[in-house]
Amino acid sequence: DNKICSMTRPNRKRQRAKAGQHGAALGGGIQTPRVQRLVCQLKLKGKGLEGKANTETFLTISPVLTLDSMNPNVKRVEYAVRGPIVQRAVQIEKELKEGAKKPFTEVIKANIGDAHAMGQKPITFFRQVLALCSYPALLEDSKFPEDAKQRARRILEACGGHSIGAYSASQGIECIRQDVARYIEKRDGGIPSNPDNIYLSTGASDAIVTILKLLVCGEGRDRTGVMISIPQYPLYSAALADLGAVQINYYLDEDNCWSLNITELRRALSAAREHCNPRVLCIINPGNPTGQVQSRQCIEDVIRFAKEEHLFLMADEVYQDNVYAEGCQFHSFKKVLFEMGPEYSNTVEMASFHSTSKCYMGECGFRGGYMEVINLDPEVKAQLIKLVSVRLCPPVPGQALLDLVVNPPQPDEPSYATFMKERTAVLSALAEKARLTEQIFNTVPGITCNPVQGAMYTFPRITLPQKAIDKAKELGLVPDMFYCMRLLDEEGICLVPGSGFGQREGTYHFRMTILPPTEKLKVVLQKIREFQLRFTQEFS
Amino acid sequence: DNKICSMTRPNRKRQRAKAGQHGAALGGGIQTPRVQRLVCQLKLKGKGLEGKANTETFLTISPVLTLDSMNPNVKRVEYAVRGPIVQRAVQIEKELKEGAKKPFTEVIKANIGDAHAMGQKPITFFRQVLALCSYPALLEDSKFPEDAKQRARRILEACGGHSIGAYSASQGIECIRQDVARYIEKRDGGIPSNPDNIYLSTGASDAIVTILKLLVCGEGRDRTGVMISIPQYPLYSAALADLGAVQINYYLDEDNCWSLNITELRRALSAAREHCNPRVLCIINPGNPTGQVQSRQCIEDVIRFAKEEHLFLMADEVYQDNVYAEGCQFHSFKKVLFEMGPEYSNTVEMASFHSTSKCYMGECGFRGGYMEVINLDPEVKAQLIKLVSVRLCPPVPGQALLDLVVNPPQPDEPSYATFMKERTAVLSALAEKARLTEQIFNTVPGITCNPVQGAMYTFPRITLPQKAIDKAKELGLVPDMFYCMRLLDEEGICLVPGSGFGQREGTYHFRMTILPPTEKLKVVLQKIREFQLRFTQEFS
Repeated sequence: DNKICSMTRPNRKRQRAKAGQHGAALGGGIQTPRVQRLVCQLKLKGKGLEGKANTETFLTISPVLTLDSMNPNVKRVEYAVRGPIVQRAVQIEKELKEGAKKPFTEVIKANIGDAHAMGQKPITFFRQVLALCSYPALLEDSKFPEDAKQRARRILEACGGHSIGAYSASQGIECIRQDVARYIEKRDGGIPSNPDNIYLSTGASDAIVTILKLLVCGEGRDRTGVMISIPQYPLYSAALADLGAVQINYYLDEDNCWSLNITELRRALSAAREHCNPRVLCIINPGNPTGQVQSRQCIEDVIRFAKEEHLFLMADEVYQDNVYAEGCQFHSFKKVLFEMGPEYSNTVEMASFHSTSKCYMGECGFRGGYMEVINLDPEVKAQLIKLVSVRLCPPVPGQALLDLVVNPPQPDEPSYATFMKERTAVLSALAEKARLTEQIFNTVPGITCNPVQGAMYTFPRITLPQKAIDKAKELGLVPDMFYCMRLLDEEGICLVPGSGFGQREGTYHFRMTILPPTEKLKVVLQKIREFQLRFTQEFS
Repeated sequence: DNKICSMTRPNRKRQRAKAGQHGAALGGGIQTPRVQRLVCQLKLKGKGLEGKANTETFLTISPVLTLDSMNPNVKRVEYAVRGPIVQRAVQIEKELKEGAKKPFTEVIKANIGDAHAMGQKPITFFRQVLALCSYPALLEDSKFPEDAKQRARRILEACGGHSIGAYSASQGIECIRQDVARYIEKRDGGIPSNPDNIYLSTGASDAIVTILKLLVCGEGRDRTGVMISIPQYPLYSAALADLGAVQINYYLDEDNCWSLNITELRRALSAAREHCNPRVLCIINPGNPTGQVQSRQCIEDVIRFAKEEHLFLMADEVYQDNVYAEGCQFHSFKKVLFEMGPEYSNTVEMASFHSTSKCYMGECGFRGGYMEVINLDPEVKAQLIKLVSVRLCPPVPGQALLDLVVNPPQPDEPSYATFMKERTAVLSALAEKARLTEQIFNTVPGITCNPVQGAMYTFPRITLPQKAIDKAKELGLVPDMFYCMRLLDEEGICLVPGSGFGQREGTYHFRMTILPPTEKLKVVLQKIREFQLRFTQEFS
């Protein structure tokens, strides 16, 4: 049993595993070299082996960085949208490429809101301007419309050395922040927006994590608690695990179109106050993965609740242009806040997030985004600017793209007609696909589906036979993971199990994007239908 | 004294400040709402005032997020390269724009390695390919060379939906990682590189922080310690503060061209072992801010030290193409590691970082970069992939650019001649400016300057008169900050004080990039010379 101490180098791999086991047997947890040395010395004592092993030997037993010795917060991070099922999908794609025979010829990845990957074409105007910014020699090319050139010139003039290859200000290029502020003012019917409150970011994820990082502190019962919806977008749970914050779940009401209920917020908050310091309330509207669009009244209630309970509001509004259902409308948290009067608009602290990745443009790869902060303490703002400066700046091509999103072609400009045609085509197709998805799923026995009011996902509930649940447990899988893995293997469709987003105990769901082209979406829905029938039969 | 409890809303700002003071008086530190409520209740008790204030009033006294209640680690973050002096420079630029009279007409920002901002032109081939990727309709344009089109097609084929607007794999586009691996193999004389060990990143900073995040854990004496050079690039100290790691300083030897001395490493390590768990050794080669190029022998010594002392090696090699001095050569840590034989190459854990921001391309705005990991535990690799997946992917335009950097035009391709001409022009100009800078500075009384062997900075030592030091202290400034602020105000030149990078107690320095065009650099050096003489005279 003293092998791990007296060995030198041969067969290190197996010995490492052993070292790990020893650690676990002696209390597990993080194993620093110091702890390991102690473990070894303890084992040597009483066996007459003291002094037989030297320090150098102990220190080379195990690598510096192992699962046992790494940051435990990182281990707790989970991100289902790119989790094991997607890794399996990539594996299957590889097998297909190498000529493997499967019951399908391609894997359809409906796991992620990745519009271009699903065949959506970029907006021509945006890409023209980006090409002009990348290679300004094209500014002399008569093939490019004047408005595209004008936009490119304006962006380049705002860049160091007139190049998008220069660093920008860490908060983002000033004239782009001005354009963002104007865009927000227009969206919110004239409520003022200050460019100093706009921070450009590397996608919305970056800004969300940054704000959480400012907020999370304290130890034990004073540790910051952050309220997130269940089901949630797993960036939130991942960021909270990483920061070691306390995750406070509030459940959306599936029976009422995934609406948010203030009573449930109160329940969650008061339970959480027993063991942590709740300081933040996160809202995703329109909802991801649940596709609901919040009513104006509900937003008002949430704001009132945040004020009463002294919570910082984080409004994830990246799907603000993705609203499809009759009678639904996007209301920004900021607009409602300001309409509630100065008692609210002067006090409630808030950050709202937006991105170039969703809406009608779907430019995920550029990692563009911004946040607007409201009522952020000036001293904290200085800290925020300092913090973002460490990463120098968000990618400048993404900033340029964001500028075009917030300042698209105007009616008197040459690119307007094409722009509007392209934009409308994407949004109407999405609306059509939202309807189609709800309609078809609700005809399938064992699947029930709320309307996809907005965003780009459906989160239908699936009824699983008890035998399937037992089988899953036998295999060590959560039941909806088992379901999704089988669907992937049998039909080549990649979805994300509901367990990756959270769901009420004993219920099962999956998330699917509605992004595939209509004809392909119909095939996907049909295949899921057939699978569901087959699966139910197999396990009943 | 019970004002903070009984007030309601008027004059909130001043009351906030008061609340802060109260907190400080009662022990300071983090002030959660709970703590505040307690403070108030204590103050009310014994004054017959119990019950006069209600909970709601307490909770609205202070914003949720204040300097007192925010994450204390973030407060500890400092990043001098974009610190107060740069904010002042931006302010002065604004004043000049508004017509203010100054002793200069422009601010020259020599504070940051931002080549394009200093007038360096992008490499034509790179930008052509980026334009083609952004707007693939240009693939039909006969003005673009065939090799640029071929590169663009290859990148687009590797993108989801053939669009750089799709998310990529979180680790980076596979064919780009393959190109990176081939580039490394070629650089290192055939030592194999596995694309699975390559992780593309959002600039090198992103990858550096990610690896540190995996490594830092433990509490108290078990807290991870990270060895960094002094002077250092302040990303390191900032990331360590943010993660709450213990910073272990080892001093470079200014008298020997800022070389690294193993005795000093040993001293720093053994002192640190008294109070933390040192697990990581960071090296920057070529050096930032100090411009030294490490000898092969020194790298070998460092690797031996890392192995003996069980340290994870982080090799920041973003300036690998920036070597100017006669007799100096870049040796990658990986190459030396493998040349030391399997005893080292199979055991020493390492990550090496590279970026598109420096070298001859200077494409900072694209935030492209990669790291290669060596001997990383497979289980930790899985954790790393999970962690990077939360942010979805590095910006795809930056990935595309990186592909061009590692796979530039070849001798038989149409763009080769222009590419080589542009590349050589940049690198020879830098070599010339490196020599010029050392030469001129060393003629100035009170300035001594090591040769700029590589990278793109000089870190000269300045002798400050005691009266200037006293004056600075009177103003509450560190002496070299005082010096740099005066230089900025009087000459419009923005440098970074040595204190922002760390320096031996009682010595003073500044960092200046050598990036300004040669003629402008001469003006800058002349102005600093004059300022130094004037400043010395004023305070002697």
